[in-house]
Order: sequence, then C-alpha cells, then structure tokens
Amino acid sequence: MRLLFHLPLSPFSRKVRLALAEKRIPFDMRIERVWERREDFLTMNPACTVPVLVEDNGLTIADSTAICEYLDEAYPDMPLLGRTLAERVEVRRLVAWFDGKFHAEVGANLHYEKQMKRLMGRGNPDATAIRAGYANLRPHLEYIGWLAETRPWLAGTSLTLADLAAAAHLSVLDFIGDIDWSLNESAKDWYARMKSRPSFRPLLTDRVSGVTPPAHYADLDF
Amino acid sequence: MRLLFHLPLSPFSRKVRLALAEKRIPFDMRIERVWERREDFLTMNPACTVPVLVEDNGLTIADSTAICEYLDEAYPDMPLLGRTLAERVEVRRLVAWFDGKFHAEVGANLHYEKQMKRLMGRGNPDATAIRAGYANLRPHLEYIGWLAETRPWLAGTSLTLADLAAAAHLSVLDFIGDIDWSLNESAKDWYARMKSRPSFRPLLTDRVSGVTPPAHYADLDF
Repeated sequence: MRLLFHLPLSPFSRKVRLALAEKRIPFDMRIERVWERREDFLTMNPACTVPVLVEDNGLTIADSTAICEYLDEAYPDMPLLGRTLAERVEVRRLVAWFDGKFHAEVGANLHYEKQMKRLMGRGNPDATAIRAGYANLRPHLEYIGWLAETRPWLAGTSLTLADLAAAAHLSVLDFIGDIDWSLNESAKDWYARMKSRPSFRPLLTDRVSGVTPPAHYADLDF
Repeated sequence: MRLLFHLPLSPFSRKVRLALAEKRIPFDMRIERVWERREDFLTMNPACTVPVLVEDNGLTIADSTAICEYLDEAYPDMPLLGRTLAERVEVRRLVAWFDGKFHAEVGANLHYEKQMKRLMGRGNPDATAIRAGYANLRPHLEYIGWLAETRPWLAGTSLTLADLAAAAHLSVLDFIGDIDWSLNESAKDWYARMKSRPSFRPLLTDRVSGVTPPAHYADLDF
C-alpha cells in the first residue's frame, strides 16, 4: 500500500491527505518526526520535510506541491487543479497564497511558535510573532470570506486544491484553538462545508499528545 | 506582446525570464516596484509579488510556480518539467528546494538583507542573518556540485526548470558578489554552462542602480 510520511499538525501533510481522500486513492500513513533527522528519511527527502509519498512501485515524491501535481497527473479522475488554463492559473495562485503567504504570515507565527518549537526543543515562543500571527489572521479570513461570497468554491465553480490547501492550513490553527470564527461569517460557512466532506473526517479525529482541540474543532455544526 | 512584471534581482522573476527564453516565447518586461503597492498591480496580484505574466488575451498569471506550470501546459514545445512522471517528480522537488529551502536559508539572508531592505526602506541589514546566509551557502553549493557530478543536468539527463531555478537564485547572489565559486568546482562548471546559454544573456546585462556586479558576473569564462 502506498505510504504517506506525515505529521498530524503539518498543514502541508493535511493538504495531501485531503487530496488523496478526495481522489479516493487509498494510503497508509506513518508519522515522521522530522526533527530527529532519521537517516533513511533523509535519503528519501534531503530537505527532511513532510509530507513524502512513497508509491507501491517505489516512486518517492517529496514536497507537497510536487505530490499534488503528481497526483493530478497520475490519477486524473476528479481533477483538483482545474480543467482550463485559466482555472489552473487561479487554483495554483491560491495554493501558493495559502502555502506561502498565509503560512508565513499566520501559520508559522502561531502553530510553529506555539507547538513546533516545543516539540523540536527550539526554545520559547516569540510573543511578537504570535501577536503578528493573530493580527494577520483577520485580513486572511476576510480574503477567504470574500472569495467564498463571490464564487461557489474558493478558486471558481468547483472544489479544487485551493479549497483543500486553505482548509488544511486553517484546520491546524483551529486544532490549537487559534481561530475566532466570529470574525467572518462567510469564511466560517465555507469552512463548515469543507469540514462536512468525507475527506475531512480523518483530520477531525487526529489526536496529538499535549494538545486538546476546542470542542468546536470536530463539530460539523459549529 | 505579452508582458512580464518583474524586478531585475528577483530570483523568481529571473527563473521565469529563463523559462520564457528557453521556450523561445517573446515577451516585454516592466519593472514593478512592489513595495509601492500600486493599485492596478494589486488588482492583478493581491499578494503584490513579482513575477506576474500578462498574456495578450488578458490572462494574468501570478506566482512563479503557477507561471512555469502554465508555460509548460500552454507551450509544450521544449518541456521544462520533464517527460515521465518520475522525471517530473524530481524536477518539482528540486524547484521547491531552490525556491523554498535555498531562498529561505541563503538568498533571503543575503540578498533581502543587503539589497531589498535598503530599497524598501525597511531598516539596516541584520548581521546575524548575513552570517547565516554565508554559512548556509557552502552546503548548498556542495549539493549542487554533487548533483552536477552525478547527472548531466541537475534533475537528470536534460536541462529542466530545476537548472533554471538554481541558476536564477545563484545569479542574484553572484550579481551582488556573494558567491565564492572556489568553494565547489563542479557547481562552478555547471553554472558556467548555464551562463553560456543564450537564455542567460539578458540576465548578464541587467544593471541595478547602486550595485556594481563583480567583474566575473558577466564573464562566461570566469
């Protein structure tokens, strides 16, 4: 069975888990504690990041963008990157927005400072970074809300990797109780739609030692 | 004529310029001072980053990864992402390596601290970051050298976007005189091959006010 090396609270791993599940591609998962820099894992991915997907034929795919592009090429049913050139441009722009800008401005400031530093033994959270993360969350929720108000799904008329990327990043912050959903009703409604998809269910049952998600995390009618 | 909004020393813009030139796709360029947050540009790309490519039919493509994926789909002659699934996995892994890891560990610490902060009026360079940048450059040059020793091109048997991405990032640091090529002979030989390609010539004639590139920058036999 193909195997995904992941971490439960890695937004990039969650994006790939959602993509695999939406495409109904079965997979096993193994937690990879990347900070231990395991030698066999470094051989698979010298960047030593999760996710890494290993196919049954041995093909090893590192980097979440490379994995998602691969999945749409190798398993074209239920395309996640859009059909026309213009759709694909918009999907990839938004995936880059969430993986790059949202992660740098919000996710890294909150999740990395509050959770990963402790796990990786890299010192105390930086209060300035955490404040910046909360401040940046607000305009990002507004942007998601605006997209959700103007289109059926974030990148257009169908569910795409843009929705999966956005939901993956938000779900990690929601797990650690960092999202005030009252800030934007449209973003909340879109996220409720994402949460109720079967692909999302495994993410809602993730448990991580030392973290108790808020009651609404797994509640589909939050 | 299609138009590329860019900055001369943006490695992501340079990657796209190389990709367009390798594919022999003609384009005009316009410098976009992203820190001025021009309203019309924000409409094209809310992330307010270069490069942005505008096609003659009005299609606007933001984000260098989205642009390169688009170019290989819209202009499939001279494919830059590889042909087989396995080749494409390796090309995309390495592009992510240079755009993500190399840029964060080396490029941002040197080019952003030494050049961009001054241009953008964001204070003085951080000496700790600059030291980290120089320290990180050494293992990165070794990795490029190792790839160049074991394969004809960085990702395999043919020139791909992996070579263009690596060369784009290195060329910016070479422009500001930050690369000691004596550190790795194989990396230097590979870069000399890249520099002598016709696609590279426009990058070698770039001039930026306030920066004088070292004599070897435009020398093909450096």
